[in-house]
Amino acid sequence: MSIEQFVARSEGQWRSMRSAHALAFRQFEDVISNISIERLAIDHEEVVDYLAMQSILPSKISCPFQITWQAESDWEPDDTTAVSQGTSILIPIPRTELTGQLLRSTGYAESEPAVASYSFLDDGTFILKTVYSQSIAEERIWFLSEHVRCRSSVLRTSEGSGILQTSFSSEIRRIEA
Amino acid sequence: MSIEQFVARSEGQWRSMRSAHALAFRQFEDVISNISIERLAIDHEEVVDYLAMQSILPSKISCPFQITWQAESDWEPDDTTAVSQGTSILIPIPRTELTGQLLRSTGYAESEPAVASYSFLDDGTFILKTVYSQSIAEERIWFLSEHVRCRSSVLRTSEGSGILQTSFSSEIRRIEA
Repeated sequence: MSIEQFVARSEGQWRSMRSAHALAFRQFEDVISNISIERLAIDHEEVVDYLAMQSILPSKISCPFQITWQAESDWEPDDTTAVSQGTSILIPIPRTELTGQLLRSTGYAESEPAVASYSFLDDGTFILKTVYSQSIAEERIWFLSEHVRCRSSVLRTSEGSGILQTSFSSEIRRIEA
Repeated sequence: MSIEQFVARSEGQWRSMRSAHALAFRQFEDVISNISIERLAIDHEEVVDYLAMQSILPSKISCPFQITWQAESDWEPDDTTAVSQGTSILIPIPRTELTGQLLRSTGYAESEPAVASYSFLDDGTFILKTVYSQSIAEERIWFLSEHVRCRSSVLRTSEGSGILQTSFSSEIRRIEA
């Protein structure tokens, strides 16, 4: 699995079932979201602007893509306006066939631009590690089939080895008739 | 990671937060369980009996262990008697350093004895695949720290590639004062 293959397999519309575990409080949060993953052109305006801002040569990058999500939380079951949503542009910078960096215009755990490092395990599992100012996020994504993928995450404190939260998503491709 | 190291790291008392995703129905099930993992002696009576029954030489096996679990489901929140529990003896038969078979006196997805095949990914993730008469279960277990491990599972139909359910557990070691 290369990053190009991974992005190609991930492109499309997904429905996600996500369970988060707050370990210290033994609390579950279950959320259903819609996720869209779309490949962007190398000369897409926001990609070009982001690379210029970070002083990165366009020849270094590979297959940039955009993730957009819209989630409905179960925390406020009577409040149908309780929808969290967002969008993020991700730009891979391969280092080797199986490793590299992933620039994010908006972070996953904290709303700040982030540089993550990625690698692939020998079964094709995608591993992503992002160091934020307050925390460290580790995600792993693997495909169960062409149309189902899993994503797990763990959020650690920056200091020491405290584990704040784990989560797991089952993502099912939405196939329009 | 070898199977001996994996069993040694897994031994002890754990509290599990488990979320199951029924994909077709978009239903979540969140359960908190207590799990005990205990290594057994090679000459433990039930191990000896099980090997005799299956005509397996004791010299082939390594570090047998017993898992006992007690779960409280959220399906019947007003019914405090809704506790599922069980116990299973597991007997590894290593083939190479990183692969082998795992005999189970009781299966995970179906209540029948089962033979699973296991392997380790290059980051130490334990992969277990069990073929039952009606379904195929694939589990992966990995450690986040000495005292926290994750377990994900996917349950497929025996026929074709249908995916019935995924699940994810965060398991935290219970350290007694």
